[in-house]
Formats: sequence, C-alpha cells, structure tokens
Amino acid sequence: MSESGNHLDNPVIVIDGVEDDQIIPNKAAKEKIDTGQDSQTIEITSEIPVAKSHLIKPPPNVSPRVKRENQNVSKPETVTLSIPTEKQQPSNAPTSATKSSNGEPSERRRRHSSRDEDLKHLTEEKLILAQTLIEDAESGRNFTYKTDPNYVRYYILYHQWYFRLALYICILLNMSLALFEKPTRPDWAVPYWGSMIMEAFCIAFFIVRVIHLSYFSQPNIFWRDTKNLMVIAIIALTIIDMICYIAWVNAAPDTNPVRWSRPLRALLIINFSDGRQIRRAFRNIRRTVPEIMNVFILFLMGVLLFALLALKLFGRRKSLKYPDGEPYFKTYFDSVWDLYVLVTTANNPDVMMPAYDESNWFALFFMAYLIICLYVFMSIVLAVIYNNYKENMKNEIRDSVFGKRRKLRQAFSILKIQRNGEDIITRHIWETIMAKVLPTKSIQQIDLLMTILDKDGTGYISKSDFLNLINLLQVPVSEVMDRQTFLEKKIPDIYNSKISRFIRICVRHKFFRIFFDVAIFVNAWFIGFDLDVADWFFLAIFMIEIVLKLYVFGPKEFFRRLWNIFDFLVIFGAVIATCVESVVGEVGEELSTLDLLLVLRVMRLVKILISIKRFKLIIVTIYNIGPSILTYGGVIFVLYYMFAIVGMEIFHGLVQFYGYNESDPSQMFCGNPKLNGTAFYYNHYCNNNFNDILHSIVVLFELTVVNQWHVISSGFIFVTNKWARLYFLSFHMSCVIIVLNIFVAFILEAFILEYNLQRSGKFESAVESKIKELGIGIGQQANTGANIGPPEVDKLELVNNEAQVDKSPQMSRRNSTADIEANDESGSETDSIPDLSNEKGVRFHLKKKSRKTVEVLLQQMFEGEINPEDDGDENSYNLRQRKWTLEAVA
Amino acid sequence: MSESGNHLDNPVIVIDGVEDDQIIPNKAAKEKIDTGQDSQTIEITSEIPVAKSHLIKPPPNVSPRVKRENQNVSKPETVTLSIPTEKQQPSNAPTSATKSSNGEPSERRRRHSSRDEDLKHLTEEKLILAQTLIEDAESGRNFTYKTDPNYVRYYILYHQWYFRLALYICILLNMSLALFEKPTRPDWAVPYWGSMIMEAFCIAFFIVRVIHLSYFSQPNIFWRDTKNLMVIAIIALTIIDMICYIAWVNAAPDTNPVRWSRPLRALLIINFSDGRQIRRAFRNIRRTVPEIMNVFILFLMGVLLFALLALKLFGRRKSLKYPDGEPYFKTYFDSVWDLYVLVTTANNPDVMMPAYDESNWFALFFMAYLIICLYVFMSIVLAVIYNNYKENMKNEIRDSVFGKRRKLRQAFSILKIQRNGEDIITRHIWETIMAKVLPTKSIQQIDLLMTILDKDGTGYISKSDFLNLINLLQVPVSEVMDRQTFLEKKIPDIYNSKISRFIRICVRHKFFRIFFDVAIFVNAWFIGFDLDVADWFFLAIFMIEIVLKLYVFGPKEFFRRLWNIFDFLVIFGAVIATCVESVVGEVGEELSTLDLLLVLRVMRLVKILISIKRFKLIIVTIYNIGPSILTYGGVIFVLYYMFAIVGMEIFHGLVQFYGYNESDPSQMFCGNPKLNGTAFYYNHYCNNNFNDILHSIVVLFELTVVNQWHVISSGFIFVTNKWARLYFLSFHMSCVIIVLNIFVAFILEAFILEYNLQRSGKFESAVESKIKELGIGIGQQANTGANIGPPEVDKLELVNNEAQVDKSPQMSRRNSTADIEANDESGSETDSIPDLSNEKGVRFHLKKKSRKTVEVLLQQMFEGEINPEDDGDENSYNLRQRKWTLEAVA
Repeated sequence: MSESGNHLDNPVIVIDGVEDDQIIPNKAAKEKIDTGQDSQTIEITSEIPVAKSHLIKPPPNVSPRVKRENQNVSKPETVTLSIPTEKQQPSNAPTSATKSSNGEPSERRRRHSSRDEDLKHLTEEKLILAQTLIEDAESGRNFTYKTDPNYVRYYILYHQWYFRLALYICILLNMSLALFEKPTRPDWAVPYWGSMIMEAFCIAFFIVRVIHLSYFSQPNIFWRDTKNLMVIAIIALTIIDMICYIAWVNAAPDTNPVRWSRPLRALLIINFSDGRQIRRAFRNIRRTVPEIMNVFILFLMGVLLFALLALKLFGRRKSLKYPDGEPYFKTYFDSVWDLYVLVTTANNPDVMMPAYDESNWFALFFMAYLIICLYVFMSIVLAVIYNNYKENMKNEIRDSVFGKRRKLRQAFSILKIQRNGEDIITRHIWETIMAKVLPTKSIQQIDLLMTILDKDGTGYISKSDFLNLINLLQVPVSEVMDRQTFLEKKIPDIYNSKISRFIRICVRHKFFRIFFDVAIFVNAWFIGFDLDVADWFFLAIFMIEIVLKLYVFGPKEFFRRLWNIFDFLVIFGAVIATCVESVVGEVGEELSTLDLLLVLRVMRLVKILISIKRFKLIIVTIYNIGPSILTYGGVIFVLYYMFAIVGMEIFHGLVQFYGYNESDPSQMFCGNPKLNGTAFYYNHYCNNNFNDILHSIVVLFELTVVNQWHVISSGFIFVTNKWARLYFLSFHMSCVIIVLNIFVAFILEAFILEYNLQRSGKFESAVESKIKELGIGIGQQANTGANIGPPEVDKLELVNNEAQVDKSPQMSRRNSTADIEANDESGSETDSIPDLSNEKGVRFHLKKKSRKTVEVLLQQMFEGEINPEDDGDENSYNLRQRKWTLEAVA
Repeated sequence: MSESGNHLDNPVIVIDGVEDDQIIPNKAAKEKIDTGQDSQTIEITSEIPVAKSHLIKPPPNVSPRVKRENQNVSKPETVTLSIPTEKQQPSNAPTSATKSSNGEPSERRRRHSSRDEDLKHLTEEKLILAQTLIEDAESGRNFTYKTDPNYVRYYILYHQWYFRLALYICILLNMSLALFEKPTRPDWAVPYWGSMIMEAFCIAFFIVRVIHLSYFSQPNIFWRDTKNLMVIAIIALTIIDMICYIAWVNAAPDTNPVRWSRPLRALLIINFSDGRQIRRAFRNIRRTVPEIMNVFILFLMGVLLFALLALKLFGRRKSLKYPDGEPYFKTYFDSVWDLYVLVTTANNPDVMMPAYDESNWFALFFMAYLIICLYVFMSIVLAVIYNNYKENMKNEIRDSVFGKRRKLRQAFSILKIQRNGEDIITRHIWETIMAKVLPTKSIQQIDLLMTILDKDGTGYISKSDFLNLINLLQVPVSEVMDRQTFLEKKIPDIYNSKISRFIRICVRHKFFRIFFDVAIFVNAWFIGFDLDVADWFFLAIFMIEIVLKLYVFGPKEFFRRLWNIFDFLVIFGAVIATCVESVVGEVGEELSTLDLLLVLRVMRLVKILISIKRFKLIIVTIYNIGPSILTYGGVIFVLYYMFAIVGMEIFHGLVQFYGYNESDPSQMFCGNPKLNGTAFYYNHYCNNNFNDILHSIVVLFELTVVNQWHVISSGFIFVTNKWARLYFLSFHMSCVIIVLNIFVAFILEAFILEYNLQRSGKFESAVESKIKELGIGIGQQANTGANIGPPEVDKLELVNNEAQVDKSPQMSRRNSTADIEANDESGSETDSIPDLSNEKGVRFHLKKKSRKTVEVLLQQMFEGEINPEDDGDENSYNLRQRKWTLEAVA
C-alpha cells in the first residue's frame, strides 16, 4: 500500500464543484481531511517503513487522475507556505515538517542557515549552464552543444534577441532585394551592383552566423544536420551565382543574364534554426507527400483515362468548337489539360457546353468525371492528408516533449543534491537558479512557484516535479499590486467623490457596454445605407465612451486590451479624418486612407458578436488557432516567393498593364498583340502579370484561389508557348493540392481539438490544477471560501504575505468555483476590464478558456500519456504510438 | 475465480500467428491445453460449485479480448461437432458433455429423442413471430408492431419484396411524371389528365401502403412517427393540389395554373419506411444543421461587414466599372452578393480587377477577405460539420445496434427453454427456427452455424451467444461443392487431356494476366495516339483471352466477377461495332454508341492499377465506401428534384436553346432579347435552362460545382429580376455548403476508418474469429495444420461430414495464417478466380479486406464496447458516450 493509495480513500470534495452554499460543509470536510491526513501519515510511517523514502515519487502505476486527487488532498500542507529545513528534520516525513513550520514566520533565518551547504556544488558556470538548459526547454530549443563554460557563453550569445532580430532583418532584406533587382518594373530597378552590395552584406552576416553556430556545436551533429548543410549550400550557391552574374554582365550585357539562385533565398527562413514552427510545418508537408502520391498518381491516371475517352468521344467531331473558336479536345495533351482544369472546376460548364449542345447525353460524361475525380478523389486526397497530418503532428509533439524533458533532466542533474539517497533540489538552489531564469520576479513569486511545483508538499523539488517546470513557466504570472489609476493617485479627492464614484459604477455596469454595442450596430446601419448625417453624433458618442473608460480604468489597464487600442486608433483616426474632410471639403475620390478609418469603425461590430455566447466559442477558438494559421501563412509565403522569382524570370515584361483606353496601338492587348481576342484580355486581366514581385504574388494568390486560373495561365501561354503550362501545373499541385489541403487538415484538427476543449473545459495541466487548488488564479479566491477563519490567514500569508482581509464576500463567493471563474475571465478578456481592485498579491492568469497555442495544448495533453521516465528511445515508440489518440480528451 | 480466469493462464498460441514452421510446436501446445483444460474443469467443479451453473456466461468484468482468448482455448471441444443431450448429463459441466460425444456418429437418433420436448412450447405462430423478429434484426428494421399472429402475417406481407418493389416503382413513376407535366419542353408534354391519372394511381398505391402499415402498427407509435405523418401530409396535400389544379384549369386555363405540391414527391423517398439509409443521412444533416448555423451566421456577418467596407471603399469611386460596364459595388445588396459569390471563388479575380487596376493596394482587401471568409471560415464550417457528423454517426449506429439487440432478445425470449435455471436454445429449436430463416440452407450448414455461434462449446445457445446471430448471418456462406465446369462434365476426356491441362495451367499462371495487362496498356497507347491500324489485332487478342478464361473456369465462375462481365460486354460490343463499321463504312460523326464501346476498353486499365499493390489499398477502400456514397447521391437527388421543380415553375421557357447561328432574330440571345450582351450569352450558356427536368438537373449540377454559377444565375436574373438570386442563394447554401460538406465529412471519416482498418487488418468480429479458428473460411485450412492426425479428421467431419483427406499440403501451409489468407483473397477478388478446386464442403467467405459496408464495420467495432446487457436506455448513454471514440481501432 502506497501513500497515494491511502489518499484515494479520502473524500475529494474540496476542489471539485464547490458551490456558494457548500462553504460550511466544505469547512467540515477540510477539517476532516486535515485530521485524516495526519493519522494516515503516521500509519504509513509505522506500517511500512520502506515506503517512506519513496513518499515523494508517486508509484508508477498510479494514473494521472489519482495523482490529481492526491494533490487535492495534500492541500492543507501546501497552502501554509512551508519551508522545511532539511537539517532539522532530516529523517521525518515531509508532511510533519510542514506542520511544524505553520505559524512561525522566522523563515529568513532558517533559509540562510543551509544555503551555503546547498549551493556549494554549484559554481557560477554550472548555474549558467543550468539556466541555459531551462531556457532552452522553455523556448523549445532542442539542440545539443558543447557544455564547456566558454561554449555555453557563445551559445547564449547566439540566441540573444538582437542577434536573432538582426538575422530576421537580414533574411527579409535579402528577400526584399527582389523588388529592385533586374526583372522588375523599370522605375524600381537599381543597378545590379547596388542590390549586390546589399546581398553581399546579408550573406556575410549569414556566414558569421553559421560560423558562430559551428563554434559551439558538436562537429558531428553540426555536419549531419540538414538545415546547416542547406544554409551552407544556399550561401555557397548564392556566392557562385553572384560571381557568375558579374562575369556574365560584364562579358555579354545584352544576353539577359539570369540570377538563378534567387528562389533559394526563401529557404533560409526555414533553415535557420530559429524558424522552428515553420520548419515543423514544412517537415510535416514533406512527410505527408509520399502518402499523398499514391492517391495523386491514381487521380492523375483517372484524368489520363478520361482524357482518352474525351478524345475519342469529342475529338473526331469536327463541328465541336469552343465559343471563341478554339479546338475542342483535338489533341491528347489538350484533353488532359482541359480535364485537369475541370477538376479544379475552373472551366466548369464552359468545357461541357459544346458537347452538351451537340447531345444532351454528353453531360453524363462530365458529371461522371466530376463526381469521380473531383468529389471522390479530391475528398480522398484530403482524407489521406488529414490522416497523415494527425499522425505526423503527434510525432512532432512527442519529439518536442522529449527534447524538453532531456534539457530539464540535464539541468536537474546539474542542480540536484543528494538527500536521503534521493536527488532533490532544495529551496535555496531553487531560489538561486530562478533568480537567474526569472530575473524580474520577486523572491516571493519564486517561492510561490516552488510551492506550486512541489506537488506533494515535501518542501523540495524532486526530479518528476522538476519536469513540470515548463508548464509552470508557461502560465503567466502577474503581481496584482498597483491597481490605482493615475488619476486616483493624483487627485484622489475628486476621483473618489460621489459623482466620480457614480460614474465608475455606471461604466462598470453591463448596460454601459450594451448601450455602446447598440450604438455600434446603429452606426453600422447608417453606414450601410450611406447616411452620413449622423457621423458626428456617433463620433462624439464613441469618444465619450473612450474618455470614460480611460477615466475609470486608467490608461495602463485601458491600453492593455487590444480592442481598446483598436477602438482608440479608429475613433481618433476618424475624428481627425472627419475634421480634415470638413476643413478641406469633399476632395472627391482620393481620400482612401480617410475612408478606411471611417469604415474600420464597423469592425467594432465583431465585438458585439463576441459578447453573444453562441459565437464566443467559435471566435475564441479561431483566435486561439490564429498564430498557428500564421505559420502556414509563412509556408505559403516561402512557396510564393520561389514561384514568384521563377515566374518573373520567365514571364517578365510580356504582359503590361496600360489601362484599357486603347488609344495607343502599342498599348492595346496588354501591350502584346498575341493577346488579341483572348479571354485574358477580354476579362481585363492585364494587371495580372509577373513584372514585379508584388504583382507576381497577387497573381499567385489568384492562382491559389483557383478560379479562372486557366484564363490567367492561358494569357501567359499565348505570349510564350504551351510549355508554360508546366509552371502553372506545378504551382497548382504544390500550392493548392498539397499545401492548401494540409492547411485545411490543420484547421480541421486544430479547430476540433480547441472547440471540444473549450466546450468541455476538461483539460488542465497538473500545474494549473495546483494553482487553482491554492486559490491563486486571477480573479480567484481560495476555494475554501473567504469567510472561514484560519485557512484564510494562511492563504493571505501565502499571497504576498500581506494580511489584508478581503472586504467583499460576494466576490469571493462569485469566484469560488473554477468554472464560474473561467466564464468570467473569458468574458472579460474581450469585452471589458474586470474589476480586480479588490485583489492583491501575486496572481496567475489561469484563464482556462483563453489563449493557449495549439502546441501547448497538445503537449499538455500528451503529458499524462508519456511516461515521465521516457526520453523517447526508438524501441518503445512503436508500442506507445497506438495509445496516442488525440481524441483522448475529446 | 471463474473459468475464464483460469483459461487466461493457458498459453494462447494455437490461433495467433501460426507460421509454417510452427506446426509441430503447436501440436505440443495444443495437447498441453487439452490436458490442462480437463484438469481445470475438475478443479472448478471441486472448488467452487456455485460457479458451475454460470459457466457459460462469462463474468461481466472480462474484457472482449479475454473472451476471445477464451474461445481459442476452448477450441478442442468445439471442433468435434458436439451435440450434448441435456437429458443424459443434466447437471454436468458442458465441457465434459462435449467430450463424451466425441467419436460417436449417432447424432440423428439422439436429436430425435428430445425434439418434441424442446419444441413443445413453440407453436407455429410463435415460430413465425421469432423468425420475423430475426429477419427484422437482420435487415435492420427497427419497428414495433402488434405481435398477434394475424398482425404478424400482415407485417410479413408488408415487407414482401414485390410490395416493396411496387412501392419503389410507384415513387419513381410519380417522380418521373415531372418529365411530362406542363412546365416541360413542348414535345414531351402530355395533357394534364394523362399525367394526373398516373399520379392518382400512384397515390392510391401509397394510400394502400399507409393503411396496410397502420393496420399492424401500434396506434400510438404509428401516429407519433414523423415519417408516417409526413407521408400522410404529402398524400393529402397532393390530393388537394390535384383538385385545385383541375378546378383552376377548367375555370381559367389561360392563367398558367401551378401544381405546387410536386416538389413534395421527392420527400416520399425519405419518408417511406424502406429508405432507411437515405433517411439516416437526412437525419444526420438535420442534426448537424443547428451546429453549423452558428458558424454560418458568423460567416454571413463577416460577409456583411466586408460588404460595408467594400461599399465605402469602392462604391464612391465613380470611375470603377466592370469590363462589361456593370456598376461596381454601387449598392449594399450588390456588394453583399458580389462578396458572397467571391467566397465561392466563382468571380475571383474579376471582382478584384477594377479596384486592383485603380490601386494595387486594394488587392489587400480582397486577399484579406478571401483568407478570412474562404480559407478560415469555410474550413471551420467543414470542421464543425465533420465534428458533428462523427458524433451523430456514432449515435445512429448505437441506436441501430440497440434496435437489433432488442429484436433478437424478443426472439430469444420466445424461443428459449429453461434448463438448469438458465434460458437457452437447444439444437432442435435452432434447427427448427433456422429452417425458417434460412430455407435454402442444408441441415449441415445450419448445424455448422450453431457450432460457430456457440462460443463456449456448450452445445446450446445462450442469450449472449444469440445476440451474435446477426454478425453470423452477415458472413456469406457458400457450399464449395460443384467445382466442375460445364465442359469438364460434358467432355471430360478432352478437357483433361494433356494439351487442355497445359492450357489450364497457362491461364491460371500469373504471366497470363501480366501479358494481357501489358496488352491493355499498349492498346491504350494506340488509342491515345489515334492509331486505328492495330484495332483488329487487339480485339482478337482480347477475344482469345475471354474464350480461354471461359474454357478454363467455366461460364459459371467466369460470369461471377464483375470485371469479367464488363470485359465480355466491352469486347463483344467492340467486335460488333467494328464489324458494323467495316461493313457500313465510315459513317462520320454519328456513331456515338460505337465510339463509346471502342473506348470503354480503356477502362480495363483500371484493372492494371488494382494489381499494383500500393494502389490496391486505395481502390479497395473507395470500392467499399461506394455504396454509402450512393446514399448521399440519393440525398442530393432529393434536393435536386425539389429545386428542379421549383426552378421549372419559375424559369420555364425564359431561356431557349436554338444553337448560335443567329440567322433568325427571334432565336438570337437564347430567344430572349434581355440576354443581349450578357456574359450568359457570350459564354454560350443557352442550353443551361429550366425547360425540362433533365436540363434543370444538369443546371443544378453545374451550380453544385459552383464555378461560373454567378454567370448562370445572372442569366436568369436578367430574364426575371434580382429576387431570383434568392433561389440560387438558397440552393448554394443547402446543397453546396451543407450537403457537400457533409459528403466530404462522410468521405473523410469513412475513408480514414476503412483505410486504417485495411492497413492494420486488426478488426474482426467474434463470429469471424470463431470461423477462422474452426478453419472453415474460404481458402482456409484449419490452422492447426493438415498434417496433424486426429484434429484433421474432426475438422473434416465438421465440414460437411465428408472424410476427404486434403491432398495439397502446400496449400494448407500457404493459408495457415489469417493474414496470408486475407491477402490472397483480396488479390483474387478483383483480378482472377482463385483455384478452389481442392476445397470441398461448406465455406464462409471470410475476406477480411473485402467489401463490408461502413455500417457493418462500425457496428462490429462498437460491439465490444456496448455492454451486452444494454438495450440503450438514456441514463447510461451520456456516460458511455465518451468512450466511443472511433479511433479505438485506428
């Protein structure tokens, strides 16, 4: 019988579902547990002496759920800010140690006494290494480097924010050169040596960066890492290309020299070691591609087969023609092209109409083709991608979790000391290392973090506790100290006067919000029907709103919320815009920036939507998966850049946009007579050209949206030849079929995961439940209730050691359960500012329904499933893999 | 300690993973188990006498996996075709009863002795009721009716195939009336009384059907069933409509009378009780819609918001115009329409081009809109639909499983007799009832079924065994008796001559298949390059192939395979076509049917693809989910029909197709001058009209594919007014956004499920494992190996009681493990005919990788998770729901 087995027998009422009227029973239950706990501990000590030394580490067969209950029960110890001094009670059970410290405030003396002994094995260099390892784990850097102090210092330097910023700037600069290099619009072009000097500068920085990296990397790892090799190859190729280009330009300037290495620039985003997220997305794509290939080949076979049928059915009918006189399925390759385009639906009824006009039954051919190739095959492509994506994502997350574990374990083995045959970290070590990791936090906060991390209330941190450190650091902490607004401090008399107080109550009231929601709605209505009469009125109303809010909440709180900043900018922008307009008068069609500001106000309608509960879930979910969506935006940008550069080299200058006045014959047909009579010109697509990189990217975006892509590509085929189809085909396959489907798969998975989590709100990490248990989440009171005597004092002692008795029993009641707290929090997150003026001390932002990146969620989900001892060796991997269903929480 | 607990201690080697060289060790293991089994049984009897009477029912806490191992161990008894006579050993454990019957063939006498006693409680009427209940469960009918014999007879009559066929014919007839009723093309129209007589006939049949149903239904259930009420309402409305119409036509024939009840006809497909699958799909849609609504409303809000922005940004710029001079974002409703169309991508880049030409930065507006509304929101719509779809499907399956269980339990309670305080079905009862349920099967087969069903080898069927009956009936059984081909019987001398035998070996050889695969490929190449020279050569080759196959396999086997029938039809069609062509000469462009046949040969290329292993998995998966895809085809057809009827009433005759010669001015512009200069006419869309139902359906299909739908709808808006947009909007929302997304969700789920099942091959039902254990799957030998003496005799006794010693040890080796068997089976399923001439007796088609509908798969998956005692009451449902993750097998 282990300790946790005993704890299970206790009733677990304290945490779960504490309602307002349950406070008195809770108190009784709590006392019962207190005594029950004591007697049990004694029991254990007397019965099974062997188990005593393993008390801290829960037995491996205890499920996470049991562990959590375990924590709940051990609460009475942990809320008392216990600092067990190992010297005094070296062989006693830790629970009794905490009891003895209860009520004695002489911590400082005792802490001092064993500090030197605890820290004597830790040199400054070791501390720095441990700190670096913890920071690596925190930021997810999984990179093995030389651990000599000298190298570690270089490693830290390498990851300094200014170096990384410089790298990003250089990459961007390098990529933006495409704006000014030769195949671009004439007015932007700079001489080739101008851009080349910039490029040489960037390249030089990249080389410095690589050398720096190689200095502290272990050589065998450095030279086996694909991304390093890629970077070196890209740099080498670029240098060769630059030399070639200079030679070429000087030797034969009229032969249109080509800078062929430019598409590679975008790959630097992926391959420099900081673009982790984007690299992961790319890796995911790379791993998914082989599986798709089977379906894709099958799909292409289907297209080829149907093209044969179409050729036989329609090709021999001489009378069939497209409306513009183009031949209809006359050659096999044209048939294949037409049917491939059809599967993107871009030429849907058009490709059918001639045959359909000939005989109605031919419609069956096209319907069969679309059902098989579009609806069935394309859905299956998505299914295969989704299936693989889930698999790959799990593997990625697993590797990432193991990487962090390894780092933390290394850090632990540096920091640990041996006590009673067990490796532990004492409070002194903790404070020393955390002072380095979290230099901005106070000693109270660091102590509090330890209390949270120390799940079993032993007074020190065991190895398994230490592995939770990352989860803890991911929970934002803030000290709720300075709640006074600027005005409150400056003019307290006025601010606290009766009128002012009334205003404050009004502004905090929910009708205040509702009133302005309605105002926004009415304003939108006016804008929609183009009624400008009330513009000033609405502007005034919204200005009053902002001023009032500023007054009540103070600028500091006010500008913390994104929505408020948005409101502020939009309204004051609109005021300035309206002023300018009224002074200058109606300027006509040119006031585009002012327009925008006037209209952006309407965006505030989204605020109303968020306050409706049924939409909140969806919007919060979208908001939470937003950052991950941006990652895929990065992936698509890399592809766009590469295709844009290639497209500019091929199609530059062939299609020009001169407007459609057609007075100058050289400017007719997009400046290219070959486009005479084509759908490209008829549809006014001349501005869709590859003349500079921005236009190219717009064209590529249009190709991504797919519609009319065959018309756009037909334009470029007319001005070159049919081989240009290859460019557009390869873009469609790589961007639309693969990347977009993976994007959809990602949204599917992320949304379903987030949505179900938000709806059930079931998941929380061990750390979070501990925080909630201690009652130090933001807006949270200790869940035993504020009107119970002694525990309250304990708690307040813990929270910043300031014994301030809470004056608002309603509030503490309101927030007594976790669910209510969470609802209030997420409500206030977007709408208004919660009234936290009654809360003091350190508070953790424990918003369950708030922003967590998908990655954090996934990691926490797997936490329970991954064996804590597991560093992820390959043998046990296959066995584990089956258990890892994402649906475990859903 | 229960019996199953003991069995767990035995090594379970006999079934799992028996390899060729493991046969000898297996024998030893088997003997060991045999003895171990005996001693254990004695142990149980002596130790815990209480447990004895519950021996058959496994204890509830034993997981399905344990149960299966349990069966494996009890194999030695079950293969001996034991017929325990309960009289002889009433109090003995069933295992010893089976042992005593071993080797004694005098079954017939003993069976006779207790027959009367077993059957005395079963009147003919009770038997019919039980049979009906079993058949209900088998066909998934979950309908409560009066159980009096008279009513049961009516119930059986109601479900007779000819009545159901007549119903389907009537529904089709009723729907096809839309071809001839008034808003149709003039040459198809019949007088209104003509179609109305037909309709009256159909309605009359429907009324008979409803009255018939109400006769044997329990009144409270009948009148609470939505589908009955729907049918009655549809009939009533139709009759009212018919009367109104007749009155209207006679009163004012010139006022274009409307038959408004016609769209309702399609609903009969769903609401008559036989369209279960399609009704389920509709129910799934209905349940998913509320969840989508939230996202959809949010999405519409986004569109409305962006429309406001667009109005402000572009509406006031007077110079902006579409290429055809149409106004550009001039009114709010036009903006909303344009942006809604944009989210379907149908008017992408066109809608952007005027603004983009004005200022390049306006592209950002459209890109932001597309990213938010198209890529994010539409993906989220899919995610929500997919999430709900999974949930709903599980509930549906659960209800269906519970329905079947209830039926079987009712049947069991009718059939059961009490023995030793337990409800059982004896062999006599089994034979009596099964002779009714499966009238075509021999007594040997029925006995064999019982042996399979009787998991524990007790010699009778307990209630929990009986619940597996449906799984058993779903496994196709065939007697592998008559393997001689027609020729072999007629001219055995020639057929078995040396040359003939050589030919047979050749044809069965894999090079034969490869040769013709290559021939098909070369033929496809010739067709692709339009080389007709070798046509005769290829036709001759393929004819020879068919003749040879017919000769070797015999017509019976040959025409069993779909591929062979296809080959036969295509080749002989092509021969006739080529003959006709060579006699009549090149007829020009009119030979469309002949063309088709010539080209369909190319479809045989798919055969080659299937023989490539990497594609087989995908193709087999598609093939398996095919029938379920058809269900959604039905759903879409119902929607199409309703929209087509409405569309014909609104748009009939407004757009005509006369070709594009433009000689006759009345035939210009699709016969409607309003279309002059529109994109609709420019794109030659005149044939996309609502003049008859077939053309309407083609138009609706084009609208489903979405591309250019705004052009098609613009045509109908020009000839009517802007309110016509509502028709096209509602079609897009219901068909494309909801139904198509549900279809994609279905394919996602079904494909992922099937694909993972096919790949892992992990899942099999209890019945299937029992069949495999007995070694009576098709192509399967008993997995103990043929070269072990006594068990082999046992087995052959079991298999049709014909003691034929197997002559091919290689074969038995080849098929000794389940996986190899499965691979061979699925290979042979599509490619060629397996050589089963060495197999005799009853064989179950146990192709694991073959055709199982998704529903069967799902049900079998849940089987293990649903508590056998659970009839699905609502309280326990919520608790269970969490466990039901489809990914349990994946």
